[in-house]
Amino acid sequence: MSQAQNRYKADLREFRFALFEQFKLGDVLGKAPYEDWGKDEVEMVIDQGYKFATEVLGPLNSVGDKGCRLENGQVKTPPGFKEAWKAAYEQGFKTLTVEKEHGGQGAPRVVAAVVSEMLSGSNAAFEMYPGLTLGAAEVIAAFGTHDQKELFLEKMLNGTWGGTMCLTEPHAGSDVGLSTTTAKKNADGTYAIKGTKIFISGGDHDMADNIVHMVLARIEGAQKGTKGLSLFIVPKHKVDAKGGLTGSNDVAVASIEHKMGINGSATCVLNFGDEGKCDGFLVGGQEHQGIRQMFLLMNYARIGVGVQGLAVAGAAYLNALEYARDRKQGSSIENFKDPEAPRVSIIEHADVRRMLLDMKARVEGVRALILKAASHLDSSLTKKGKDDDGAIEDMGQVELLTPLVKAFASDQAFRVCETAIQVYGGVGYTKDYPVEQYCRDSKIFSIYEGTNHIQSLDLVARKLGQRGGMNMQKFLGDIQTFVEKNRGHDALGPAVGKLASAAEAIGGCAMTFMGWAQSGQFDKVPLTSTRFLGIMSEVTIGWLLLDAAVIALDAQKKVSKDHPDFMFYEGKKHSANYFAHEVLSAVPAAAETIRAADRSPYEIPNAAFATV
Amino acid sequence: MSQAQNRYKADLREFRFALFEQFKLGDVLGKAPYEDWGKDEVEMVIDQGYKFATEVLGPLNSVGDKGCRLENGQVKTPPGFKEAWKAAYEQGFKTLTVEKEHGGQGAPRVVAAVVSEMLSGSNAAFEMYPGLTLGAAEVIAAFGTHDQKELFLEKMLNGTWGGTMCLTEPHAGSDVGLSTTTAKKNADGTYAIKGTKIFISGGDHDMADNIVHMVLARIEGAQKGTKGLSLFIVPKHKVDAKGGLTGSNDVAVASIEHKMGINGSATCVLNFGDEGKCDGFLVGGQEHQGIRQMFLLMNYARIGVGVQGLAVAGAAYLNALEYARDRKQGSSIENFKDPEAPRVSIIEHADVRRMLLDMKARVEGVRALILKAASHLDSSLTKKGKDDDGAIEDMGQVELLTPLVKAFASDQAFRVCETAIQVYGGVGYTKDYPVEQYCRDSKIFSIYEGTNHIQSLDLVARKLGQRGGMNMQKFLGDIQTFVEKNRGHDALGPAVGKLASAAEAIGGCAMTFMGWAQSGQFDKVPLTSTRFLGIMSEVTIGWLLLDAAVIALDAQKKVSKDHPDFMFYEGKKHSANYFAHEVLSAVPAAAETIRAADRSPYEIPNAAFATV
Repeated sequence: MSQAQNRYKADLREFRFALFEQFKLGDVLGKAPYEDWGKDEVEMVIDQGYKFATEVLGPLNSVGDKGCRLENGQVKTPPGFKEAWKAAYEQGFKTLTVEKEHGGQGAPRVVAAVVSEMLSGSNAAFEMYPGLTLGAAEVIAAFGTHDQKELFLEKMLNGTWGGTMCLTEPHAGSDVGLSTTTAKKNADGTYAIKGTKIFISGGDHDMADNIVHMVLARIEGAQKGTKGLSLFIVPKHKVDAKGGLTGSNDVAVASIEHKMGINGSATCVLNFGDEGKCDGFLVGGQEHQGIRQMFLLMNYARIGVGVQGLAVAGAAYLNALEYARDRKQGSSIENFKDPEAPRVSIIEHADVRRMLLDMKARVEGVRALILKAASHLDSSLTKKGKDDDGAIEDMGQVELLTPLVKAFASDQAFRVCETAIQVYGGVGYTKDYPVEQYCRDSKIFSIYEGTNHIQSLDLVARKLGQRGGMNMQKFLGDIQTFVEKNRGHDALGPAVGKLASAAEAIGGCAMTFMGWAQSGQFDKVPLTSTRFLGIMSEVTIGWLLLDAAVIALDAQKKVSKDHPDFMFYEGKKHSANYFAHEVLSAVPAAAETIRAADRSPYEIPNAAFATV
Repeated sequence: MSQAQNRYKADLREFRFALFEQFKLGDVLGKAPYEDWGKDEVEMVIDQGYKFATEVLGPLNSVGDKGCRLENGQVKTPPGFKEAWKAAYEQGFKTLTVEKEHGGQGAPRVVAAVVSEMLSGSNAAFEMYPGLTLGAAEVIAAFGTHDQKELFLEKMLNGTWGGTMCLTEPHAGSDVGLSTTTAKKNADGTYAIKGTKIFISGGDHDMADNIVHMVLARIEGAQKGTKGLSLFIVPKHKVDAKGGLTGSNDVAVASIEHKMGINGSATCVLNFGDEGKCDGFLVGGQEHQGIRQMFLLMNYARIGVGVQGLAVAGAAYLNALEYARDRKQGSSIENFKDPEAPRVSIIEHADVRRMLLDMKARVEGVRALILKAASHLDSSLTKKGKDDDGAIEDMGQVELLTPLVKAFASDQAFRVCETAIQVYGGVGYTKDYPVEQYCRDSKIFSIYEGTNHIQSLDLVARKLGQRGGMNMQKFLGDIQTFVEKNRGHDALGPAVGKLASAAEAIGGCAMTFMGWAQSGQFDKVPLTSTRFLGIMSEVTIGWLLLDAAVIALDAQKKVSKDHPDFMFYEGKKHSANYFAHEVLSAVPAAAETIRAADRSPYEIPNAAFATV
């Protein structure tokens, strides 16, 4: 019953299809800012990432599940994490997207997304430490003073130091504005920080020499709410002007949480300044800009959570697929009453096939959603300075899709893991196989970095109307163009018809939301936004699966039936048709339900929920 | 961070409503076989059950989550389990449904279901030990010889001995017919048992003096498949004719599973007869009747799993409700931009209310489904010998509803627990609150006692056509009667209209299934049966919630607005309207999807699922 075996799997052919065939990575390779990136470099980094995921991180996943320990105020990570951290930095996985001027490789975002998928899929808990470190470094890179960048950036990017985001407090979770951590200016220009932060992922660990906390705090006299918050760089150990460590900075780990999953990631309660000796550097020297600065990090972190969801779901799918091919049980349906009939692999059973295809479609669909957003980002970056209108248009799609990426990918992760357990049956519930851990790990994704409901409010109340609604119009227009072109497709036509109806239905919802806004019926938005995010995501995924299938079936004509690509392309057709039939067909009725906006949740009196 | 506090909650008013107001328990009280049961007795047993659940079992739930240990071949249960076992038997909770001739209280099944809900809800893992013991005893009571009953029954019913069901083997899970455990007749009429059984819940423990295993095995020379299986009573310790223990019966615990949840329940691998010294008693002295005999137990066990699902979901809902009332975060939607606005309990937020009402409706709906089945059973038992046709008709409904109870209640449990975690937010993911354990515990319910897909095949391929389709016709006819009576209801009319459409849609599916059967399109059944079970369950629940609401609103007219019942009744209206609006409205489109029976899961070639 050893857990320390590698269970991670990825389908590299699928990654290459998504990057080069569906999302046309070739169009940006070799162009600024991706001058140094060609197809060979991309292939190489994918292969290296897969090797690292399967050989280094994968075997540590179940080890990490046993959890971290807090010893004398110091977090001890699970055995092997320290070596993996060192190797991840040495091999350059953590600086893929970092700009060249800061020592990174400046890779296209779609490539980085694929590598992140492999690292998170093989060990979601481990990957949070370097992921948050990179996020913290990016905030300093974007908003820090020259000195702050000099002092912190290199060490945070090469893994000498770690990093965290410190927003949440005991009474300020989703409601960040309630934050009571204070900052008081010292004579030397630093600030004395005092307060308690909770749920700090990687809040302490033993893999780096120092940990740099990005802490939201309120400078004395600042206004209440989020607008009065400032962002501070607060290292665990004090740092002198040359980057030397000069002793404790009065940041204490009060406790670590005992959780359902991601147990290899230490979730800390941190006390800043209990002894009045905690100093922080104001980011960029700018007061009251904390929320704006933190949101840069939050936006990337939200896409990062989407990638986590995809990653775990993808690993769950491929493990379930392998089990379904190996495990023999029952005879085929033609012989089901004959006890002498040969036993077949469970993949031959209808409901197992249905579950596998369901997982396949959802995983590929979520991957396409994420890479769609990432490719808009790449496209925007290559257009910048040459075609600024185009760059803005692309960024608009990134903004629109971000809440879908975070919320839908995370919800689907839990759903796919649940299905994976069901494919395994009883053994899936045991720790002999990895899927129960994937399921536990994935539950947090719908909560952190802004709950999924908050994502849906961001979508409906902000993103739909952004740029006067032009982002949403462009999104629906792209689908419309696809529909017109492919409505008569031989193999996919009926499914494209379902996409058309579903897209029309979400367009109708968008109009309804606008009507509510104009007539002051704001309270209908939070009542329906979660459900709307769900169906808009389904439409996006249904579209992208069909787009992939069109491309795949064209390409299939050019390969012989015994070429391995033939079957790969065939699979794309079934993912798209299945999803359209099973999921898109339900969207119009769901849209009607949204538009009707039943008020029962408002109308029920609090006392009527239960007599206890 | 102490876990050993009681977290269990139940709404006793809700139980009383379901029993006396909706399911008219009064109609069977005082009538044979329930002559000894009046309203006072029922009230008393509910109060006692709640006291036991909250004071004894609840505090042991998180203790039990730390798991059992295997020491020198003996399972050690978590601290406190032994005392709880003793108390449960002393207080008579385990013999509620046992017939009086066997020393039980012969309680109505609906009463037993409510008590089971409380015991399982407070500690699902613990409750499995006595639950399976009772199931094993019931098989002996139904099929055992006089001597077998004399020898085993009393001790198994009073908790001196435990009991298990041993079906599964490493290569025989859902496919029980593959079982390779053998039985060879000894000179004294007993049988030498040899084989390995896995996933045996309560396969060993330290709470009883002996454990009586009900083991499926194949007598030498018997045919292959399920029809060649016989059922044996195989005690852990050999038993002499007077019930004395005379030494080991060669049943060894090879290992216990490490699981996602229900860790307080020891899931064992058992080796029977490794040393050739394991003797079993053939149940009833009848060869090759094992599957038929075991199915008596399986049918009750399936309802039992449904109760487990309800129980955990109910506890998750009431805990989330309490948290939502206590936890302050954010301001009300009218003031959401004002940082000075007073903070409100999160129950005031639209999406939290939506989640709570969603849980409320699902929990109450599943409870009504289970009690509906149980009340048909009670009704059948009281009609027996007086109105045999009526008794048969009632039993038909029990048979029809059993797969819904098992599968839908278990799936909903996981869904409700997931929602409960979301209501809590980050703290719901920690072991500081009980919901993450509920979620982990509940995942097994969809797998054991016949996977939920097997339930759906039982529903579509057996139950829909039972008695020439009369059970299904009666079911749809009851809904039709309700619809006709209440279509014009003031507060519920539109929801009743949605029920009518949804019921029509599942009726249409039933016709389609019949058409497939007549035209030999059998392979469409396993492709669609899981989904059909889902919508048929939703229709059942939508109907029963509306039925409850009609009764509640009538009763509400008779109480003053400040009577606590007023709000309780008001809640019933909202559960029903919410469920009809949000869930029933999607049924017709889902039914169309079922009837269209997309064949993608069959058509996709195995090699097209992935290139790995």
